[in-house]
Parts: sequence; structure tokens; C-alpha cells
Amino acid sequence: MQLSTTATGAVSEQRLWQRHAEMAQIGATARGGVNRQALTPEEAEARALLVAWAETLGFEVYVDGIANLFIRRAGADPEALPVMTGSHIDTQPTGGRFDGIYGILAGLEALQVMEMSGECTRRPIEVVVWTNEEGCRFAPGMMGSEAFVGVRSLESILAVVDEDGVSVREALSVVLNATPQARRRPLGIPVSAFVEAHIEQGPELEVRGVPVGVVTGIQGVRRFRVSVTGEEAHAGTTSRRQRKDALAAAVRMVGALEESVRDYEDEVRFTVGMFKPTPNAPSVVAGHVLFSIDLRHPRSAVLQALGDRFGEVCRREAGGCEVVLREIARAEPLMFPSDMLQTIQAAAARLDVPYIDIYSGAGHDARQLHRVCPTGMIFVPCERGISHNEAENAKPGDLAAGARVLTEVLLDLARR
Amino acid sequence: MQLSTTATGAVSEQRLWQRHAEMAQIGATARGGVNRQALTPEEAEARALLVAWAETLGFEVYVDGIANLFIRRAGADPEALPVMTGSHIDTQPTGGRFDGIYGILAGLEALQVMEMSGECTRRPIEVVVWTNEEGCRFAPGMMGSEAFVGVRSLESILAVVDEDGVSVREALSVVLNATPQARRRPLGIPVSAFVEAHIEQGPELEVRGVPVGVVTGIQGVRRFRVSVTGEEAHAGTTSRRQRKDALAAAVRMVGALEESVRDYEDEVRFTVGMFKPTPNAPSVVAGHVLFSIDLRHPRSAVLQALGDRFGEVCRREAGGCEVVLREIARAEPLMFPSDMLQTIQAAAARLDVPYIDIYSGAGHDARQLHRVCPTGMIFVPCERGISHNEAENAKPGDLAAGARVLTEVLLDLARR
Repeated sequence: MQLSTTATGAVSEQRLWQRHAEMAQIGATARGGVNRQALTPEEAEARALLVAWAETLGFEVYVDGIANLFIRRAGADPEALPVMTGSHIDTQPTGGRFDGIYGILAGLEALQVMEMSGECTRRPIEVVVWTNEEGCRFAPGMMGSEAFVGVRSLESILAVVDEDGVSVREALSVVLNATPQARRRPLGIPVSAFVEAHIEQGPELEVRGVPVGVVTGIQGVRRFRVSVTGEEAHAGTTSRRQRKDALAAAVRMVGALEESVRDYEDEVRFTVGMFKPTPNAPSVVAGHVLFSIDLRHPRSAVLQALGDRFGEVCRREAGGCEVVLREIARAEPLMFPSDMLQTIQAAAARLDVPYIDIYSGAGHDARQLHRVCPTGMIFVPCERGISHNEAENAKPGDLAAGARVLTEVLLDLARR
Repeated sequence: MQLSTTATGAVSEQRLWQRHAEMAQIGATARGGVNRQALTPEEAEARALLVAWAETLGFEVYVDGIANLFIRRAGADPEALPVMTGSHIDTQPTGGRFDGIYGILAGLEALQVMEMSGECTRRPIEVVVWTNEEGCRFAPGMMGSEAFVGVRSLESILAVVDEDGVSVREALSVVLNATPQARRRPLGIPVSAFVEAHIEQGPELEVRGVPVGVVTGIQGVRRFRVSVTGEEAHAGTTSRRQRKDALAAAVRMVGALEESVRDYEDEVRFTVGMFKPTPNAPSVVAGHVLFSIDLRHPRSAVLQALGDRFGEVCRREAGGCEVVLREIARAEPLMFPSDMLQTIQAAAARLDVPYIDIYSGAGHDARQLHRVCPTGMIFVPCERGISHNEAENAKPGDLAAGARVLTEVLLDLARR
């Protein structure tokens, strides 16, 4: 295959970096991070900026019923299924400047250099913004990509409510109104292939000194919510034996759960990241605690065995409290098709960009697309592997190297 | 001493109960409780209602620099120091209908029946609303009574900020503006005696079947805040050994602290009621946790020994996290003067109201007044001892019995 020197050579490190800087101002936090949670005014503002760039470049913009946003560069064959790339524009509450947004801006850069160099592909290429990947305000995440591939019904997603009782259905208008130029399209159109570029969110590429990782697969995840109900009581007058202290019980549960998953190999990823007592007042014995469990592992059998024990572990530590454990999301470990891996490896090789194969600890929207079309991922390094943190950082040169490989891969797939 | 049959006999169970019902509508919660935290619009509304009642009865109203509110019935001797009674009008976020407000409404009832029966006392009698006893939004509590007796400086209290960065200084206007008729008076005038009526917040009076407890003393308390700092990280990619998980560390600390205070006698009151992780998101390893410790005991030496260990216990469980423990409040155990106990016992005996002596597990503003004048407390039963809970409940007859004893005690003290 011929090297697309014109297009990939036009990828601009400076422009790509500048767009990251502009996006990082939307929801910027005092400590240099970004708080741009899904379906908030900040996300709406970021979408409006993205669409403004797309329109300047002459691309059409579409939106579907869950507010997934598509920037489309037409192909020569009007009947051909599109190649898609993209990621998410939302962040964690104390998120960084690269998680998600990199995949979108690298995709836009690819479309721009194709346009500038007059590339003509058979297939259309689309850059997609998947709605609510992070799943903080509305849990669980990956709502946009799950609705797109049909693994969750749109109705069930629209009915999800945040802590204030606001539903996804109500909150969607905040982002939909920000891009009135986007034309409505049906949910879940057929796709010929999907490639997602993303920061690694782990340390491996940096340690190995290579700018690109070809992602072989994604580990599995099970997500739980544990609700512990005791009885509110006065901290000064209620004896230990009289108490039904939901906070004390929940603390014992979290400790016992940690012990129950402890592995010498340090392969299990177990996280309690959310812990919400009620009323959360210093002189009141807590009457209720809601906490989250996030469990990940590369092997399905391990996920199954460990997660299935959680209910029993919690009940053993409940004391006089009631405990209800609910599994709210589950995704099996996956391996991307070898054909896609080879396509990405070959593109990097043609461009002389060093790469390694790498396995993803983090989940991505690509997990969902993998269900409906050939899917792959391109990782670039992030500093010290730190992510979901305001200190998240990446190098302009690495981002550009990833964007060049992405451009090459998209051209290859769109010519097929 | 002569029984004040006219005044105490006029105490109206029905009126007292009705006023509790009206007050309970201000900040009423769906589950039958009250959320009327200090320096909020709800507290302001409750103060306005109280002052309206006081004005109808012809009493003068005063307010001081920390918004303590005083309803004054004049005495015959314009030089005599006032007798005071009262409590607090604020509640916990999920508080009840009687905690605090009972002491104020019982005091108002006492002033009203004295007025109705034409009682003339040598000393003036004042019903006081102490600002922010509960200390939820602005911690620690008892701000009004502490400022009044001078144990904390007004300046340091005004500078306290809530979670949103709003200071007490700024928030005070919300309640001050609600009672424009109140005349300003200096902070900390001399007082001849203070008596506080309050629900027991424990089960003893109900179990023993008596309507009145003569409070012998209050156990001591030490309050701490523990700040645990780790590093935010991605739940899927960061291995256990790489993590500085502030939530996991804090959970270990709370567990170890619980163990460190465990006593066979079940006399120690140890409560972690507040636990706030940051960012509190399911797929982010928490970078920070702030939690509270509330430790109470009747013996000073035990408080000292147990509390002094907390820093070491927390550091032992910190893993790679930093931990800072701060003591934010401390009050020694106290015994009320026997003269005040005898005054209350004698009043109950004259009225044929059954009573027992009782020790208080909960802290009260009376703790502060005890520093500057002869002080005592009258308890009435509450259902199952449940307090700091929306289910808090009490019986109209018990409330009235307590108000009759209070009236008798105030008349006795104000004639001296």
C-alpha cells in the first residue's frame, strides 16, 4: 500500500495542541484539570466549539437521539458504510485535559488534513462524540455508545436520574440546544469499522519510550452499588450496642471486600471510589451509606468468582444493618480482531512511528463498537500514567504521532 | 416556699404542643422531621415566628453580635441580673421536631403563664435562642453560647466558613434581617442563673416512666477532623501497589479507631458521622478524604487517653497517604452545682411531678453557661431515646410537665 505522505505529513502538532488548550479552558479547574461532566453546560460549550471548527472546515454535522454527535467527511461512494473514529468529550469531576477529547481532536485533525490535501476516499469518514462515557452524574457510563450499538435500550437510558432527580431525558436538551445546526439522524446506523485514539491512562508507553500503542484488548469490568441501611442516632447518647451505625458497617464491608480480592500478582483492580453517608453530619450516627465497587480483570472467570462473593462478604459485616448489593454494569474482557491490529501496526510501520502492542486496563467506547463492527484502538502515552486526575498530562509530539497513525489507518479503511 | 399554683397551673399542654407543631412546619422534611440548620432561611423563618409570638405577649426582644436572641419579661428590680432559660432553634440536616426548640417553647410558655397570672418577680426572666448549637453547616457548634460566655472570640467565630466558602459573618444577616424589631445588645451580659429544658435524647426517662429528669452533669467530648491525602488515579489502570488510595486508607483508619476505643462497659461514645471523599466518583481512586471523629466519655482521663492515641492509630494505617489530624473542639465532663439540682428537685416535688436524677450523654448550651453562672437542666422523655433523627418524638403531657417544673424553677430563681 502506498504511503499517504501528503495527508499524514500535514498533521500539525501545533494546531492539535492548540485545540486541546482551547478545549481545556471549558470546565477548567483551579488545579489545571477539567470538570466537564456529561450533559452539563460545560459539555454543551465544548460541543459548540467542536461544531464551530467542523463547520469552518465544511463538514456536515449530525446528532442522534442520545446526543451522540457525528462530524462527517463525505466519500466518493454514496452507498458505502462510513468508517468512524472518535471518543468522548465529557470528563470526571476532577478530570484531565486529554482523556476522551484527544480521540475527538485527533479525528478532526485527520479529517482536516485529508480535506487540505484533497484526499478522496471511497467511504465517508465520521468523527463521533459518544455521550456520557464517564458516567459520573448519570451512571453507568458509555450511554451513547451502548445506545448506538443497541446493548441498552434508549428508553432505559433516558429514564436514568441523577442525585437531584433530573433524568437523562431532561438533561439531554442542554447539549442538544448547543448544536442547533446538527441534523437529526436515527440511532445506530451501520458502520464499516471503528478506530478510537486515546491516552493510555497507564505508564507502559512512557516507560518503554514509544509514542504509539496498538491496543490488543480491554479487560472486563463489573460495577456494583452497595446500599447499607442502619438507624440515625445521637452520637452522645446512643451506646454502641444500641446503634445500627451504617457508616461503621460500610467501613467494615469495604475493608473485608479489599481483603477478599487481594492477589499476589496485583492483577485485580478493585476500587471503592464513591462513598456517601446520610446525613453525613459529625454528631449523628449515619443511618445510610451508598458506596460503589469497580472490579476489573483480564479474565472472565476471575471477574465472575470474585464479584459473586461480594454480597456474602457485605452481609457478613452488616451487623444490625440491612445491606443491598446491586450489579449495575458488566462487560466481559475482549480482544480486538487481528485484522484491525495488523492495519494499525502496518500504518505505524509505514510512517516509521515506533509502537508496541498493549492491553487496556481502562474501558472505552470501543468496547461497545466491537460488538457491531471491526474495531481497534490507538494509545498515546500520558505522563506517569496519571489519569482521572487534574494533573493528567501528555506531550504534543506524542499526540501528533498518534494522530498521524490514526490518519493513515482511516485512509486505509476508507479506501477499502 | 409557697407553690405558685396560679402560674404553673396555667401551663397549657395544648398550646405548647400546638406551637411545636407550627415550628415543625418550618424546614419540615418528607419523613416527618425537620431540616432547619443554623443561619439558613428556615432558621430565620422560625425566629420570626417566635418573635411574633413574643411581641403579641408584650415582651421585649434583643439580639447580640452572634445573633443570640433574647425574649425578656421585666422584673420589679431594674438593677437585678436576669434569670435565663432557653436552648437552640436550629436542627441537624435530618433532625427532629423537639431537639432544641422544646427548651425555647417551654421558656415562652413559662413567661406567658406568669404574664397571664400577673406574677411579679424581682429579677427579669429571659428566654434565649443560642445561635448554631448543632454545628453542621458551620462547625463546631454552640457558637452562640460560646461567644456569649467568652470562651471563643467573636472574631474567630465570624471567620468560620462553610463548604461553599460562605462565612458566619456573611450568613448572620440571613437571621438578623428576619427580626428587625430586636434591639441590639452587647455580647455576654451578666446572668444570675441559667436553666435549660431539653428532650433527653436517650431512653432512660421513658424506660423508668417518669416525665422529668434533673440533669446532674454532662459528659465530656473531643471532636476531631482527619484529612487523608493520597493521589487520584484511574480505577482500571492503576495497580494496587501504585495506588495512594485515600478512601481505602481512611476506611482502615476508621476501622482501627473503632477497635482502639472498644470497651466492655460500652461507656465510650465513638462516632464517625461525616466521611467525604474527593472526587467521590466510582471509577476514580479517591485522592482525598475528610472525616470527623466525635468522642465522648464521663471521665476526663479516659477522654484524654483515648483521644491522644488517634493520631498514631491513623498514621499506622495511612499506607502511602498523608494524614493530618486536628482537634477542633473539646469540652471537659462537668457536674452542675448541687444548689441548682436541689432547686429543680424541690420544684418538681412541690408540683408532684415524678423525677429522677439523670446524667447527660449529649452536649448542650448549658455546658457553656455553667462557666459563668449557676446552671441546671431539666430533661423530658423522648420516644425510644431516638434523636438526631427525623423520627424523634415526644408526648404532649411530658412536655407540659417539664414546662410546669421549668416555670416553678424560674419563679423561684427570679424571686431571689
